[in-house]
Amino acid sequence: MNRLRRGERMVVMAQILASQPYKVFSLTEFAQMLGAAKSSISEDLSFIRGAFERFHLGKVETLPGVAGGVRFLPSRTPAQIRALAETLCQKLRDPGRVLPGGFLYTTDLISTPSLAAQIGEAFATFFSDRRPDVVLAMEVKGIPLALMTARAFNVPLVTIRREGRVTEGPSVSVNYVSGSSRVVQSMTLPLRAIPEGAKALFIDDFIRGGGTARGVYDLMREFRAEVVGIGVLVETAQPREKLVTRYVSLLVYEGVDEATGEVIVRPSRWVLELS
Amino acid sequence: MNRLRRGERMVVMAQILASQPYKVFSLTEFAQMLGAAKSSISEDLSFIRGAFERFHLGKVETLPGVAGGVRFLPSRTPAQIRALAETLCQKLRDPGRVLPGGFLYTTDLISTPSLAAQIGEAFATFFSDRRPDVVLAMEVKGIPLALMTARAFNVPLVTIRREGRVTEGPSVSVNYVSGSSRVVQSMTLPLRAIPEGAKALFIDDFIRGGGTARGVYDLMREFRAEVVGIGVLVETAQPREKLVTRYVSLLVYEGVDEATGEVIVRPSRWVLELS
Repeated sequence: MNRLRRGERMVVMAQILASQPYKVFSLTEFAQMLGAAKSSISEDLSFIRGAFERFHLGKVETLPGVAGGVRFLPSRTPAQIRALAETLCQKLRDPGRVLPGGFLYTTDLISTPSLAAQIGEAFATFFSDRRPDVVLAMEVKGIPLALMTARAFNVPLVTIRREGRVTEGPSVSVNYVSGSSRVVQSMTLPLRAIPEGAKALFIDDFIRGGGTARGVYDLMREFRAEVVGIGVLVETAQPREKLVTRYVSLLVYEGVDEATGEVIVRPSRWVLELS
Repeated sequence: MNRLRRGERMVVMAQILASQPYKVFSLTEFAQMLGAAKSSISEDLSFIRGAFERFHLGKVETLPGVAGGVRFLPSRTPAQIRALAETLCQKLRDPGRVLPGGFLYTTDLISTPSLAAQIGEAFATFFSDRRPDVVLAMEVKGIPLALMTARAFNVPLVTIRREGRVTEGPSVSVNYVSGSSRVVQSMTLPLRAIPEGAKALFIDDFIRGGGTARGVYDLMREFRAEVVGIGVLVETAQPREKLVTRYVSLLVYEGVDEATGEVIVRPSRWVLELS
C-alpha cells in the first residue's frame, strides 16, 4: 500500500468523523488505519479542526486522557440557522400552502432530506448541552426531523404511535387532550423502547396548543425517563399560552394575510436571539 | 484570509460534496470559495477521489462539459453490504425479537441512525442506475429507511398514509388487499405529492405477501408515475410467491427454530450474489 499524502489522510479522517457524529475515535485507530505516526495524525486533526471551524462545517473535539480521542459534533452557526429559517419562511409564504382548519402544508419541506438534515443539525445545536439518550418523534410527520436530529446526536430515534401495534410487544399508553381541538387521544410506546432514566429530546413539526407535548411528558413519566428538551419546526402564534412552557421553535406561524392570501410566518425569537 | 493548505482545501471540498450527495458543484465555485486556481482544485479533487476509493467511502464523479463539475455518490462495496447484512442478522437472531403473529421486532435497528444510514446507502447502491425522482415510504416503520435512501439520492421522501389527513389537501386513495392477512386496506397520497412522470423507488422494512407493494404500483399508476424499484430490509421466506416479482431484499426471515427459539434469518441472494 502506497503511503498516503497528508491531504488524503485528512480527507479520510474527516469523512469518517463526520459520518458518525459524537463517536469517539482513538488516534491509535487512525494511525493504524492510515499507516502514519500518532504525532502526524494529531497534527492532521488540528488542521481538520481549523478547516471545519473556518468554513462552519461543525466541530472537531479532542478528548484528553485514557478514554480520549477525537469526535465530530454537528453544529450550525447562528448565521446558518437564521439563513435556514429565512429560507423556510420564504417557501412557506406561498398562499397555496394554507389548508382547511388553519393548517399549513409543510410535508414537502420536512421530507426534503437536505432541509431535514439542516433542521436536525439546528436542533442538535440548540440542545447540544442536553446530551439526549434518545430522540422522540410523534408519528407520522414528525419522524423525518426527529430522525435527522437523532442522527446528529448519534442516538436512537423512538417513534410514539397513536395506537398500539401487535408487532411491537407489550406497550405503555397514556391519554392526552389535544390542546387545540380538545379531543382525547392516546399515545403508545413499546415497553422496551426506552430504558429507565433515559434523557429524551422530543422533536416535532408543529405545536399549537401543546397537548401532544404535554402527553409526551406524561408518557415519559411512566417510563421514568426525563424530557430534556422539546424542539418544533413551527409554532402557531395563537394560542399564546401553550400547555408546555419549555420548548424551542424555529418558526412562528401568525396566520394568513386576508388581503393578499400570503402566509405570515417568521423566524422565532430563539432564532433571532441566537448569538 | 490566510491561504489554505492543500489538505485543508481537500477536507472542505470533501465535506461539502459528501453532505450533499448527487449535487453537482462547479470547479469555479470551489475555486472562489477556497481562493485557489481551478487547476489546483482539479488536482485536489483527483486526490479526494483516490482517497475515497481506497477507503471505500463512496464515489467522487467528475462531469465534463458546460454543465460539468463534480459530485459525490454514496456507494457501498459488496463486502460492506455483506458485513452490514451479517451484523443485522446477528442482532435479529435474539429469540426475544419474536412477536405474536410471526412478526419480528426490528424497530430499534431501523431507528438507529447509523444503521439506517448504512441501509439507505446499500439501497442507493443497489438502485444507483435507476436514478429515482422520489423515494416512497409506507407509514410508519418504513420511514427511517426510506428517508436515509432519499438522503443518499438527494431526492424527496414521499410518505404514503393509511388514511387521508385533512392537513394535506386533496388526495388520491387506492384500496389494496394485504397479501398475508387478506384484509382490504387503503393507502393515500396528497395530489401534489408526486409530479406526473416521476420515477419512484419504494423502500420498506418488511415484505411478506407483497400486497402493500402491489398497492404502491396501483397508486403510482393513478399519479402516472413509474415504480423503478422496490427495496425491503427483510422478506419472509414464506409465501415464496409474492404479489410483486421485482424487488430487492437485504435479509430473508425463515422463521423460528423450534428447539432453540432462535430466529432464523440470513442475507438474501441479492446480497450474497453482489460482486
